[in-house]
Amino acid sequence: MTLSSHQAHVILDRAEAKARELGLSVVVAVLDGGAHLKAFHRMDGAVLASVDIAIRKASTAVLFQANSEDVWEYCKPGAPAQGLQLTNGGLATFGGGIPLRAADQSIVGALGISGGSVSQDVEVAQAAHAAFETERN
Amino acid sequence: MTLSSHQAHVILDRAEAKARELGLSVVVAVLDGGAHLKAFHRMDGAVLASVDIAIRKASTAVLFQANSEDVWEYCKPGAPAQGLQLTNGGLATFGGGIPLRAADQSIVGALGISGGSVSQDVEVAQAAHAAFETERN
Amino acid sequence: MTLSSHQAHVILDRAEAKARELGLSVVVAVLDGGAHLKAFHRMDGAVLASVDIAIRKASTAVLFQANSEDVWEYCKPGAPAQGLQLTNGGLATFGGGIPLRAADQSIVGALGISGGSVSQDVEVAQAAHAAFETERN
Amino acid sequence: MTLSSHQAHVILDRAEAKARELGLSVVVAVLDGGAHLKAFHRMDGAVLASVDIAIRKASTAVLFQANSEDVWEYCKPGAPAQGLQLTNGGLATFGGGIPLRAADQSIVGALGISGGSVSQDVEVAQAAHAAFETERN
Repeated sequence: MTLSSHQAHVILDRAEAKARELGLSVVVAVLDGGAHLKAFHRMDGAVLASVDIAIRKASTAVLFQANSEDVWEYCKPGAPAQGLQLTNGGLATFGGGIPLRAADQSIVGALGISGGSVSQDVEVAQAAHAAFETERN
Repeated sequence: MTLSSHQAHVILDRAEAKARELGLSVVVAVLDGGAHLKAFHRMDGAVLASVDIAIRKASTAVLFQANSEDVWEYCKPGAPAQGLQLTNGGLATFGGGIPLRAADQSIVGALGISGGSVSQDVEVAQAAHAAFETERN
Repeated sequence: MTLSSHQAHVILDRAEAKARELGLSVVVAVLDGGAHLKAFHRMDGAVLASVDIAIRKASTAVLFQANSEDVWEYCKPGAPAQGLQLTNGGLATFGGGIPLRAADQSIVGALGISGGSVSQDVEVAQAAHAAFETERN
Repeated sequence: MTLSSHQAHVILDRAEAKARELGLSVVVAVLDGGAHLKAFHRMDGAVLASVDIAIRKASTAVLFQANSEDVWEYCKPGAPAQGLQLTNGGLATFGGGIPLRAADQSIVGALGISGGSVSQDVEVAQAAHAAFETERN
């Protein structure tokens, strides 16, 4: 399966609706399975820093096939791969990046959210991911 | 004036409609006045190379406050600023990037289109730019 | 279809056999459909410059879905997209990069050869590409 | 001594056999004494992140003439060269990179493994390194 524009827009739309519900302005990035940009939206009022952060959370998720915050378990101080976050041009190892899987569980891309607190970004990301999975099934 | 999400989506929607009318799959990039990404869409079937090209056309347009192809006049062999295209991380000095101006003519961003021939990209870019201006007025 | 290690090695093996037949030492790079490295071999005696050149020919081919030399038609002096070679981190717009397609013609990767003259690199690339297609069918 | 293609393939073959024995999909990178890529293979199923990580472990090993994890002793918090890991484009200071030495102990290259847990990567790297040494002697 290749990630479609339709699927990317389901993600953008749900992320933005959820962000508005939480009173947030976020950046939403959707990458394909090769970590190339598919769709992107910076809501009015989102900080500029979130452009890079949202894309980096998504690329971390697609490169490691894992939620961005789970990568931190490998690279935190004292963990076996301490410093892993310096690879691949610099990872974002905190919440808000979630991989996107086809029905057969193969990776077709990832989404990344930035703009609120990390827990808010995760909440938005999870809502957008759930919408993707509902649409896919 | 700051470029709004609403304006960015007017551009994305018109560009995609025009591309479909021409039978093309294009990438559409919208940057703000600081050359930061505001909205982006890679239509299904567009080549991967167009991700970078569309963003670069838009950044060339906003950085020089000129259509991307007009920058070539300054940097072509024999012109006074020969080699200018190597600055700013590499310019895209061919058609498809158009600056976005507020009613007072100040620059608020730029759009970039890539995916068809250069003349097709320019046609899509002009249609999207016209929609932006119509909506602005 | 995803490019397999088996397919990548068919390419490496045939490229090296052809290079030896021509008395050459070449670099062979095989990328997947997202332009990520899948397999690579620098034959003994190949110049160091060919490491980057082989990878860049392959990435040019996969990003544009075209033979690397065909991209030059768009960017040569006087062509509509003059300067296109400065995009995507710098293209290699001469022969030796060939896209790899699945039976349904979708792009699954590309190969790049560097080390001989351009016409020799093309000859090696074509032999390797033919071996890939024979194995695929 | 210059690292030969034959030696590089001894390393690739042993690393892959060991990875299969452990039920892993890994990336194997072999660099020469100048930190330039000599041979590379991403096994089917290895995560994309491992492309960069394997190469970086090998480059860390060749640049410092030490196992990648040993470099961490110099750069960890409180060590004299705190922050050293930010040099050379970012080091990989955890296990999986091992320098390759000629019989006279001069450095001729390094190998890097990524794809499993760090201890698994080290196990694969050690097996490949042992095969290199056996073949060399």
